[in-house]
Amino acid sequence: MANAPTVRFRVDFGNRCSIGIGKIELLEGIARTGSISQAAREMRMSYRRAWLLLEDMNVSFDHPVARASVGGRGGGGVVLTAFGSGLVAGYRRLESSLQPLADACMEEVGRHIKAGQPKRTIRSGSIKRKSAPRAR
Amino acid sequence: MANAPTVRFRVDFGNRCSIGIGKIELLEGIARTGSISQAAREMRMSYRRAWLLLEDMNVSFDHPVARASVGGRGGGGVVLTAFGSGLVAGYRRLESSLQPLADACMEEVGRHIKAGQPKRTIRSGSIKRKSAPRAR
Repeated sequence: MANAPTVRFRVDFGNRCSIGIGKIELLEGIARTGSISQAAREMRMSYRRAWLLLEDMNVSFDHPVARASVGGRGGGGVVLTAFGSGLVAGYRRLESSLQPLADACMEEVGRHIKAGQPKRTIRSGSIKRKSAPRAR
Repeated sequence: MANAPTVRFRVDFGNRCSIGIGKIELLEGIARTGSISQAAREMRMSYRRAWLLLEDMNVSFDHPVARASVGGRGGGGVVLTAFGSGLVAGYRRLESSLQPLADACMEEVGRHIKAGQPKRTIRSGSIKRKSAPRAR
């Protein structure tokens, strides 16, 4: 169903670190490509930004999420640590458990989404009002 | 536990409408105060922004989430419709079901958050690097 509810989420650990889909996809890209720059490129993200996201995780936890790989076929690249892989797995597990819950709680509401034109973006000044609303 | 995982989330209905904590708190404020401007003030939000958020919901669904109240003690104010109340209830129900899941999936990761200084904000240019990272 086009209007089935989907959930976007991020997990905050105190005020120390937030993990959202961006960091998770970056870690998955690194695991797949063995390269920060390749993973960044696939996400159309600058190398600098990818590096900063990775560094944010590496300094927030007492275990690093990725480390330089040495020797072997992948020598010179980057690999996820066991901790990094566990982080990705936990996030993805949470994501899959979320969807049935979202369906259960919000599907009825979703049935009342109108068909037709796409969502308008709300940004100050971007919507022309028919008339100035009266304060209530 | 200070570093227990907490989830921030929003629910997307296709590309038509997104419901996050801002819209939900606005609806709850309207239900409580009977007034868009009062609800907005309590959230330190402009009346215009509150009106636009409300309008976004009212045009996205085939039922309005709020309507003008007429007559009686609350006459001249705004009340939530049954649909609007249901939307709030569904979101809050989803939120309460989420937390145990987040604990189950991310608590182990959260144990590895370092104590000490708060999270750094990642914003282009905001973090001084020790040295330029080498592309890997």
